[in-house]
Amino acid sequence: MAELDSLFSPTRVALIGAAASEEKLGGIVLKNLLGLKGEVYPVNPNYAELMGRTAYRSIGDLPCPVDLSIIMRPAAEVPGILHQHAGKVRFALIVSAGFAEVGAWELQEEIKHIGREAGIRLIGPNCLGVYNPRHGLDTMFLPHALLKKPGKGNVAIVSQSGALVVCLLEAVRQANMGVSKVINYGNAVDLDAADVYEYLAEDRETRVVISYLESVGNGRRFIEAARNLDNTKPLLVLKAGKGAGGQKAACSHTGRLAGSYEVFRSILRQFRIQEAIDYESLLDGAKALSLQRPASGKRVCVITNGGGSGVLAADECGRAGLELPPLPEAVVERLIVSFPSFYAIANPIDLTGQVRAEDYRVALDAVREAYDGFIVIALTAVSGVTLAVAEMVHDFSMATGKPVVAHVAQGGISRKLARLMEKGKIPVYPSPERAVRALAMLLHGRGDETR
Amino acid sequence: MAELDSLFSPTRVALIGAAASEEKLGGIVLKNLLGLKGEVYPVNPNYAELMGRTAYRSIGDLPCPVDLSIIMRPAAEVPGILHQHAGKVRFALIVSAGFAEVGAWELQEEIKHIGREAGIRLIGPNCLGVYNPRHGLDTMFLPHALLKKPGKGNVAIVSQSGALVVCLLEAVRQANMGVSKVINYGNAVDLDAADVYEYLAEDRETRVVISYLESVGNGRRFIEAARNLDNTKPLLVLKAGKGAGGQKAACSHTGRLAGSYEVFRSILRQFRIQEAIDYESLLDGAKALSLQRPASGKRVCVITNGGGSGVLAADECGRAGLELPPLPEAVVERLIVSFPSFYAIANPIDLTGQVRAEDYRVALDAVREAYDGFIVIALTAVSGVTLAVAEMVHDFSMATGKPVVAHVAQGGISRKLARLMEKGKIPVYPSPERAVRALAMLLHGRGDETR
Repeated sequence: MAELDSLFSPTRVALIGAAASEEKLGGIVLKNLLGLKGEVYPVNPNYAELMGRTAYRSIGDLPCPVDLSIIMRPAAEVPGILHQHAGKVRFALIVSAGFAEVGAWELQEEIKHIGREAGIRLIGPNCLGVYNPRHGLDTMFLPHALLKKPGKGNVAIVSQSGALVVCLLEAVRQANMGVSKVINYGNAVDLDAADVYEYLAEDRETRVVISYLESVGNGRRFIEAARNLDNTKPLLVLKAGKGAGGQKAACSHTGRLAGSYEVFRSILRQFRIQEAIDYESLLDGAKALSLQRPASGKRVCVITNGGGSGVLAADECGRAGLELPPLPEAVVERLIVSFPSFYAIANPIDLTGQVRAEDYRVALDAVREAYDGFIVIALTAVSGVTLAVAEMVHDFSMATGKPVVAHVAQGGISRKLARLMEKGKIPVYPSPERAVRALAMLLHGRGDETR
Repeated sequence: MAELDSLFSPTRVALIGAAASEEKLGGIVLKNLLGLKGEVYPVNPNYAELMGRTAYRSIGDLPCPVDLSIIMRPAAEVPGILHQHAGKVRFALIVSAGFAEVGAWELQEEIKHIGREAGIRLIGPNCLGVYNPRHGLDTMFLPHALLKKPGKGNVAIVSQSGALVVCLLEAVRQANMGVSKVINYGNAVDLDAADVYEYLAEDRETRVVISYLESVGNGRRFIEAARNLDNTKPLLVLKAGKGAGGQKAACSHTGRLAGSYEVFRSILRQFRIQEAIDYESLLDGAKALSLQRPASGKRVCVITNGGGSGVLAADECGRAGLELPPLPEAVVERLIVSFPSFYAIANPIDLTGQVRAEDYRVALDAVREAYDGFIVIALTAVSGVTLAVAEMVHDFSMATGKPVVAHVAQGGISRKLARLMEKGKIPVYPSPERAVRALAMLLHGRGDETR
């Protein structure tokens, strides 16, 4: 059993600072924990019982040791609480803020010392903690009405920032994705991204890891863990705190120095770990890598029913290091017979506004052998684009196993079509360029010497 | 009266190829034209009447000259039809495809020649034409069920691509914007972007012009018109056909050479005309410039309730050429008194997850004099962010007249809050980076020597 199993799938959990109602943060978390596949021990000296569970005066009064304690008490109380943990707790998740991020460095050093002395791994402080839907574990104190979390899936989220993890959870859900393991570790006094990467490398429920970082603590350990993880499944990193302004902002956020972005970046490149350029590309990449297998190669074919959108996709291929080789002669001959003379039989293939749904299948079939990846653009303002296109693209993807992504424009049946495509494991994007960038993330996978 | 008034606000319009029902493209356009503030003359030799209007056998049978004729007949018939136009029509809009974009260069040269001989301005061929909601003019043959067009507003769209104009119309509507004049001119055998720019420079209903271009015809004339337009109101250009792949794609799209992108780009820069880097930034910029006045300066203040989102915004400011100067001493002193100790009193100002709505007003009031532009980040997963924030930001924007943009995260009240903000003329974006890029487009306005 991996060490972090006790953190992500604990069988016994104590909640220090549990409250009676969801009006308090300690009540929200307690309510969350009622769904745990395991035992929950609320700790609060003012109650004998909370939400139907026996409440305990202190961690010392628990009937048994626990895998995980969640500490939701003011910062000043945390050292005293941690002292009582010795021998009883494996992981202590300190939700409380008020440490290095507000300049209280000594207090943070103190809890670090206590944890080390007692052999307890610390998560946080200043964090939301862990979400593992398969185990019913949710330590995040956000009101349910304001944040609907995604269900089970294969995307792991590792975030230094609490705000970002919340934004990512909501966005992942809205993009029809699900999550495997989610963690926000805040000030990272002990447990850091590297620990989580090591764990996720072995985690069979995780297929892609997206990670928001401001600082990396021990750089050598981080890069080793990142490299090892990326050897087993795709890791996508969004590094914040790039310029001087961002670095200063990062420091007042979690109290850690962001370090040189240029050095960080060159190391990522050296080890071929992919970097997301911004928030949206992190999500876009997650969707692609959650639904499809990465592959190598850079020969791309674009099939569109709108000329301009095809040109924008072609431009972006150039920027993303992808190639648009012309259609092979045999493909041209085949398509000229199948298609009206005003279709553009080239790459991009432009099926024009006169497109019939079936044309997508014909075009895909013709080009399947000659390319490494495919962009399907379906603009829904013409009647020829029907929901049947989703099945054609899905069938093609299943039959070839090659990366395929889609751009579906807003309007008409676009929402239905996009949803149907994503059910069929074709990631859909709202612009031609974002579709291309997502395909590039799929094609710059392991084995590609050029990425 | 400007020459193109007869194109964008014609009082008499003939439709050649009008049809009886909306199952045919000529029926869709006829239906559209029934809303025209002016007279419509359907032309179709097989009918005496169409949708309640007298139908005519040919353009020669019309009772009077018309400002605009719309030609929806097969390419091969177009020269013959155009010959009948002499002396009767000022603008002929050739919707029909099948010209240079499919290699029929001679046919295209022929119609060009006929138009020039007869003194008729030609729009197209291979285009959707014109949409002017204030005049009830809509020549676009797309089924209403598949494309809902935006209403009256201040954004003009000038697009070489039909597909793109359709995508932009839908996106503009969904982003709660409206349009002044819209045109897709396709192969541009005669009327080109430069003509439309000249017209829009004088058009009082237009506040911002967004333009999708693949080629520019006469480069000198284009740049003169673009420059002149941009001196009166912001022009945002998305140039497609940038690399070799895109240029080839552009050529098979509208049959025109895309030319050197590098040259084009350096000319735009020289004349300080803003370029959108991709489809989404064209829309994002349109929204910002539609709702707010551009200004100069590059000193930006970020106010956030999520640390990570603030760091990402700070990073993007660096990339976008904006600065994040520290808070002036007096502002720090003022805010330290107003805010809890765990808020980060810096730039970004981090109001944390404990934020109360009122904090946004306090922060904005404190920083208003010291900065040129403002980013407000409101993450809605915490209960302190309420709809009241929209009014505070609106009031601030009205009082200062300085650019303010917002990033509102998905989830909870985010949709309502975003809508309310945009009603209050604060453009809202789904990521910190897109908000920053939009603010950069506002701040790189006329008078800024650094853009």
